[in-house]
Amino acid sequence: MTYDLVIQNGTIITAEATYQADIGIRGERIAAIGEGLSGARVIDAAGRLVTPGAVDVHVHLSLNLGGGLVSSDDWFTGTRAAAFGGTTTIIDFVHPEADETLMQAYEQRRAEADPQTVIDYALHMALGPAQIPQLGLLPAVQKAAGITTYKLYMAYGYCLKDGELLQALEAIRDVGGLPVVHAENWDVITTLVNRRREAGLTEPRWFPRCRPALLEGEAAERLITLAEWVGLPVHIFHIGCREVVERVAAARARGLPVYGETCPQYLLLTEAAYETPGIQGALPVCAPPLRTEADQQVLWKALANDHLQLVTTDHCPFTMAQKARGLDDFSRIPGGVPSIEARFALLYTFGVRAGHFSPERWVDICCTTPARLHHLSRKGQIAVGFDADLVIFDPEKPARLSTDWLHENVDWTPYDGLDLRGWPVVTLQRGAVLAQDGQFYGQAGQGRYLARSV
Amino acid sequence: MTYDLVIQNGTIITAEATYQADIGIRGERIAAIGEGLSGARVIDAAGRLVTPGAVDVHVHLSLNLGGGLVSSDDWFTGTRAAAFGGTTTIIDFVHPEADETLMQAYEQRRAEADPQTVIDYALHMALGPAQIPQLGLLPAVQKAAGITTYKLYMAYGYCLKDGELLQALEAIRDVGGLPVVHAENWDVITTLVNRRREAGLTEPRWFPRCRPALLEGEAAERLITLAEWVGLPVHIFHIGCREVVERVAAARARGLPVYGETCPQYLLLTEAAYETPGIQGALPVCAPPLRTEADQQVLWKALANDHLQLVTTDHCPFTMAQKARGLDDFSRIPGGVPSIEARFALLYTFGVRAGHFSPERWVDICCTTPARLHHLSRKGQIAVGFDADLVIFDPEKPARLSTDWLHENVDWTPYDGLDLRGWPVVTLQRGAVLAQDGQFYGQAGQGRYLARSV
Amino acid sequence: MTYDLVIQNGTIITAEATYQADIGIRGERIAAIGEGLSGARVIDAAGRLVTPGAVDVHVHLSLNLGGGLVSSDDWFTGTRAAAFGGTTTIIDFVHPEADETLMQAYEQRRAEADPQTVIDYALHMALGPAQIPQLGLLPAVQKAAGITTYKLYMAYGYCLKDGELLQALEAIRDVGGLPVVHAENWDVITTLVNRRREAGLTEPRWFPRCRPALLEGEAAERLITLAEWVGLPVHIFHIGCREVVERVAAARARGLPVYGETCPQYLLLTEAAYETPGIQGALPVCAPPLRTEADQQVLWKALANDHLQLVTTDHCPFTMAQKARGLDDFSRIPGGVPSIEARFALLYTFGVRAGHFSPERWVDICCTTPARLHHLSRKGQIAVGFDADLVIFDPEKPARLSTDWLHENVDWTPYDGLDLRGWPVVTLQRGAVLAQDGQFYGQAGQGRYLARSV
Amino acid sequence: MTYDLVIQNGTIITAEATYQADIGIRGERIAAIGEGLSGARVIDAAGRLVTPGAVDVHVHLSLNLGGGLVSSDDWFTGTRAAAFGGTTTIIDFVHPEADETLMQAYEQRRAEADPQTVIDYALHMALGPAQIPQLGLLPAVQKAAGITTYKLYMAYGYCLKDGELLQALEAIRDVGGLPVVHAENWDVITTLVNRRREAGLTEPRWFPRCRPALLEGEAAERLITLAEWVGLPVHIFHIGCREVVERVAAARARGLPVYGETCPQYLLLTEAAYETPGIQGALPVCAPPLRTEADQQVLWKALANDHLQLVTTDHCPFTMAQKARGLDDFSRIPGGVPSIEARFALLYTFGVRAGHFSPERWVDICCTTPARLHHLSRKGQIAVGFDADLVIFDPEKPARLSTDWLHENVDWTPYDGLDLRGWPVVTLQRGAVLAQDGQFYGQAGQGRYLARSV
Repeated sequence: MTYDLVIQNGTIITAEATYQADIGIRGERIAAIGEGLSGARVIDAAGRLVTPGAVDVHVHLSLNLGGGLVSSDDWFTGTRAAAFGGTTTIIDFVHPEADETLMQAYEQRRAEADPQTVIDYALHMALGPAQIPQLGLLPAVQKAAGITTYKLYMAYGYCLKDGELLQALEAIRDVGGLPVVHAENWDVITTLVNRRREAGLTEPRWFPRCRPALLEGEAAERLITLAEWVGLPVHIFHIGCREVVERVAAARARGLPVYGETCPQYLLLTEAAYETPGIQGALPVCAPPLRTEADQQVLWKALANDHLQLVTTDHCPFTMAQKARGLDDFSRIPGGVPSIEARFALLYTFGVRAGHFSPERWVDICCTTPARLHHLSRKGQIAVGFDADLVIFDPEKPARLSTDWLHENVDWTPYDGLDLRGWPVVTLQRGAVLAQDGQFYGQAGQGRYLARSV
Repeated sequence: MTYDLVIQNGTIITAEATYQADIGIRGERIAAIGEGLSGARVIDAAGRLVTPGAVDVHVHLSLNLGGGLVSSDDWFTGTRAAAFGGTTTIIDFVHPEADETLMQAYEQRRAEADPQTVIDYALHMALGPAQIPQLGLLPAVQKAAGITTYKLYMAYGYCLKDGELLQALEAIRDVGGLPVVHAENWDVITTLVNRRREAGLTEPRWFPRCRPALLEGEAAERLITLAEWVGLPVHIFHIGCREVVERVAAARARGLPVYGETCPQYLLLTEAAYETPGIQGALPVCAPPLRTEADQQVLWKALANDHLQLVTTDHCPFTMAQKARGLDDFSRIPGGVPSIEARFALLYTFGVRAGHFSPERWVDICCTTPARLHHLSRKGQIAVGFDADLVIFDPEKPARLSTDWLHENVDWTPYDGLDLRGWPVVTLQRGAVLAQDGQFYGQAGQGRYLARSV
Repeated sequence: MTYDLVIQNGTIITAEATYQADIGIRGERIAAIGEGLSGARVIDAAGRLVTPGAVDVHVHLSLNLGGGLVSSDDWFTGTRAAAFGGTTTIIDFVHPEADETLMQAYEQRRAEADPQTVIDYALHMALGPAQIPQLGLLPAVQKAAGITTYKLYMAYGYCLKDGELLQALEAIRDVGGLPVVHAENWDVITTLVNRRREAGLTEPRWFPRCRPALLEGEAAERLITLAEWVGLPVHIFHIGCREVVERVAAARARGLPVYGETCPQYLLLTEAAYETPGIQGALPVCAPPLRTEADQQVLWKALANDHLQLVTTDHCPFTMAQKARGLDDFSRIPGGVPSIEARFALLYTFGVRAGHFSPERWVDICCTTPARLHHLSRKGQIAVGFDADLVIFDPEKPARLSTDWLHENVDWTPYDGLDLRGWPVVTLQRGAVLAQDGQFYGQAGQGRYLARSV
Repeated sequence: MTYDLVIQNGTIITAEATYQADIGIRGERIAAIGEGLSGARVIDAAGRLVTPGAVDVHVHLSLNLGGGLVSSDDWFTGTRAAAFGGTTTIIDFVHPEADETLMQAYEQRRAEADPQTVIDYALHMALGPAQIPQLGLLPAVQKAAGITTYKLYMAYGYCLKDGELLQALEAIRDVGGLPVVHAENWDVITTLVNRRREAGLTEPRWFPRCRPALLEGEAAERLITLAEWVGLPVHIFHIGCREVVERVAAARARGLPVYGETCPQYLLLTEAAYETPGIQGALPVCAPPLRTEADQQVLWKALANDHLQLVTTDHCPFTMAQKARGLDDFSRIPGGVPSIEARFALLYTFGVRAGHFSPERWVDICCTTPARLHHLSRKGQIAVGFDADLVIFDPEKPARLSTDWLHENVDWTPYDGLDLRGWPVVTLQRGAVLAQDGQFYGQAGQGRYLARSV
């Protein structure tokens, strides 16, 4: 039997095991994993690791904040950068306007994404106060749009009051879905922000002081309690501090299906960054804010101990010019940092090489658990029948991070100059080479929308 | 040396010890505790317990809910009933209207109380959203009115949003005061109430189903976290469920100055009461609602273990006719139950006699800790220089509770027919007999307002 | 490419995923997992589950207790029964005598096992007080005998004092090994046993009363603390009560590498069994003893939540005649119950079908985690390069447990009459059919000793 | 009415309150506390604090370790030093020899103490393995000797095995007594000591390395678990590390009657002291060993939060010459440090003045709780009918600690040169001045043995 393509001689790494085998691909799927497979085409992966394509369930491409402020990576540049970094599936968001239906908003987002995306993608549906009256439509939307995960905000304009949060959780429970939640105490934050603004304390360094970790812990606990009462799992986004990690761990120890994610920025940067005067202090503004070195240690340990279960990027780049809009008022700095391209390699160098966890755990938190938790049934694993989304990763390849060669459409990176050892050399999606040795072989629109079910 | 009055031969019980001694009173104060004291007048307390006058820091007399609905005990009937039951000091509330200043509201409340009260009293100042702009006046109010404790609501019309709660806590911290807090998740409650009303589920039995214990725990945790961040002690009112007890205990174990109170209704009644059809199910409506027998056991144990520190009444009686207003809509039932007269004796029979805790602990949770925590510097202890507020308590006197003889101005009691063993036979305030053997010797207006400082 | 044997059309279940694929076997190994594989021989598994061969890391075959008392399954009957039930690898024990070296004892045990065993096996080395002087030999024994796991007793004749336990743990740490531990407080147990015997309380019902769960929790905590201080992972054997589960969970929450196992008897039987008069009360004597229904619920939940990580059997059968030796003195009843044959199916019916956990978790706790934790590098997974130890499991096949047809060499089973739904129909070891449809195709001695390394 | 003696104008401090009053003494008792009392004799305490006589329930006077090694303070010098420091009651120990009865040992100890002691005292009865057969005599001993507290060792020659510990706890429970326990893991300690000795690591700095805090926590947990199972309160001696504090706090949070004590040496010294070469490193050897600064902070906070309940001294002085016996073998250094004289003042300066807790808490942990917990029914409180054991404490009096003037019979103090502010100026026992302004007015034998009951 001859396969269309065989990845030969690689060291396969799954969430469970590391072993030597070839991978035989027929069409878009993995058709076999075995010894001595023969293929019409062959890629030699000797000396390399072969992992599932990485899955990033938290990205913001072309995020329109209004007032002309749109995150700088569009569906093409963002997914191309992802592909270079070994990420073959993302989940982005639908943010309905108050005057449109969930389906209209979904179709609008599909219309933006489909022509541009080069990797496969799914969408979370955001449910804000204006969407509460539409909760009865969730079953229809789930069926029609294949959306099973719902973004709930405890902050910003989409901020739900607790009673609304309750209703949204109930509706999501009833369709068997998963809420993904930005958990902060927005009322406290706005109070502190207003106080600082009134006092003229508007430089970026005041930004983290308005979002205390203790209160972020409070919001997480409130969410966990509501989810416990309603009776459904919950995924807490972008955890960066001990206070939330402890609450997630305690909930899990009680047997609650609570899942926690962190991001490279929380693992590798600290709030000290905001103290730099000028634009440098403004660039790393993201919410929740960066925390301390002690928090970083808690996060690494939590990933190792399964107190946290996944790493995403919350990729949401804004250019230096865009960030500069808020230089004299930190509350106007568009929030977000880029890492859609480097996440998978960053976690290899600073997670695996640094001894925090095993290569299998790396694959688990970057590929397998994100896919499974988010109902991406053919992604995140190297197994027969799964999509042939694969990364050939050179564990020795050096990479010094720089905007000179990173493909993200943003003129800065918080990781500038950071030295990695280990980088993807081939990225395949559904059996086709998307990127190899720094060359891009994909094209806009070849990515597919992934309709999900539960 | 001859004292004005000597209480002879009694067994003195304090929060610390039980011992035999006479108490010599000169004027309004305790002038001596000793053996063989001689007095111009003498009361023989042989075979009786002598305790400090009980202190009830949570009562609602003449509480005006609007629409003609006023709690049925006024300052005279309520304090007279208190006196019969051994309570010599209460703290009630000032509830400012939106269009009056804190001082105006305080003076208005004084004007109501002063002519009527027969026992000493102090006032908590309620701070709702309309009072947030007046927070800067707290130092002046504290100085002028002697108010050091502040009622904060996480429910009802006075409900503070989290940012307002933060500001109120900061202002209270800055004057060295103590917040006393009604902690529930109001937004969830109103959501659940509206849902039930829309579904036509309006009998009293639906009342507790709108106020889940898990969410009461959430509110307590939120409050504790805010208080921890702000850095001040906090007193949580009317705790009736395990979920809040556990949070208080955990906070205390971390060294936080969190104090928890419960009330007789939570110790002795259960939510089963709401299941009775008609007015009987409506009478025990109070918030937070009554809970389960399992919760009762948790509360008794918590009082013994110092996880809870004090027992008050939240006395807020409404007559059967008043309660009946909400028979076809539980949300319109005025909330509250009476116990201002029986609290001290209830805790003796069901706390001490039942073996949950010692006589010393009984005095501690009903007299000493309430007084000390609330800055009542001359109350709650039998010690030289303290006010001669004393109770001579007959530990064997039987009492079957009944509105036939209780002095509360309300035509029902949830404890009707309950048999107690142990009841106050003499109540003295500042050296004068207020009540003795069922006779009342006080008069309206003899109680004094207690200006406090910190 | 044609494989020697292909398992076709089955539903593969691993610890991570469930999917359809064929399995191609070449020689003794899995050579491929793929679609449409062709083989010289083929087994059709349509409608069946295909799992890794189950791994039972805690069995006692031919256990010689002295005085002529030997557990009734020998290496042939025991491993044959295991094979019928889908278990293809076991780990048994070497119990050195005081006057022999570790290697002598090992070789003696190999000499017993090798000619008889029909499945692959490894050995734990027991280290009692008499072996403490030999701790320096562990590196040599590990190299020569491939033993990497060490049984430590906190009970019985092999009972280590705490200082000895410390030394043993240090020596095991130094060779990178894993201690597997029987944790009870032996000194308390013997005190209680002697007291009961002196009082003439010798029926089996007194047996569990001498081994309180609270003290079993104490022993586990002591072990965990010692292991934390020494710095090595530890595997706690046969956990049957909440008290130990909570300690394991708390240790893991702190990040300690503590692993907990339970057994079918603790999941399915209760201490009520000891109350039956006569031999029926004696049969289920095992240590630690069976506990309560409440404990059972804790155990099932702990398996689901990863507070416990694996299920073994502690298979140690004694016949009714053997058990009867202790009818008039419970302390002389040989301890142990059988389940080597039914474990895998019991966990399917009562774990998966009853909704406690997923099929993937079933494979994880019965196959994958036991193999990985115990350094069985080619066992416990369906992956290329691993041994072709496989079970074809009919999820609908009914089985009413009975000694009439079970192959364990013992004249009773505690599960007599229990109805299962789901049973293995084919068991393969290293590519060869060992058992199929109730027929046995193996032969004594074909099992191999598994030398392990770390 | 005229009293024999009146302490006038002092500020009385009890565990509950601070207030101004005179104390009238008649004979040996407090006969009155009042304003303007008149006495045959008067002591003016204006500007001074008046506290109960301090109670030290853990001292070792004339402790005979064998081999001619006897702690250097005898019953006269030790109790005289105590009196100078404000301590008016101690509890020391009876250590029965294997060949004597409990009563014989008790009488022998009485014979030593009675002629010499200048303050009142009681005795704990030590119960080692040799006393287990005499447990049936506890009721008789309690009746005849008035002993209600029992010292149990989990270390040294009196070390009880767990089964013996169980039996001792049961016997103590049956007489309503209280065990006071030295909790360490002796088997681990001896193992580590032997290892160090065999390696020639015998300087004092190796002493603490043989007694790890983690294992001290283990021993405490074991004891707590046994006490929970048996069902009695337990007092844990000389707690110096976070690991034990956390276990005590957790047990108390579960409602268990566990009491924890610490001593000045753990609050004020650290293990760094052992690093000093020569005799200086040997002097502070005591067991459990001194710990770290972080532990000190935990201890202070625990005293404030009621996680620990009392402070004693474990006073057990050995001279420099005696300590020097173990200079070349730390295991032969007699353990113990002095503080019987300075404890009360040390806790005032470093506890109250440093802001760790209030004056009331100081009295509670040094006087009231020790007395009440140990059944000293007339000690530890300023209340009518209690013994007139009183301290007049000058809160401003400076004291630089030095063997030049301290009255302990030992040629060193670990607190040499430490500056205190606050020192007792008068000590009264049962109405008689024992010490005043540095003059001693007592005489050998005037102290009384305190027979206790429960």
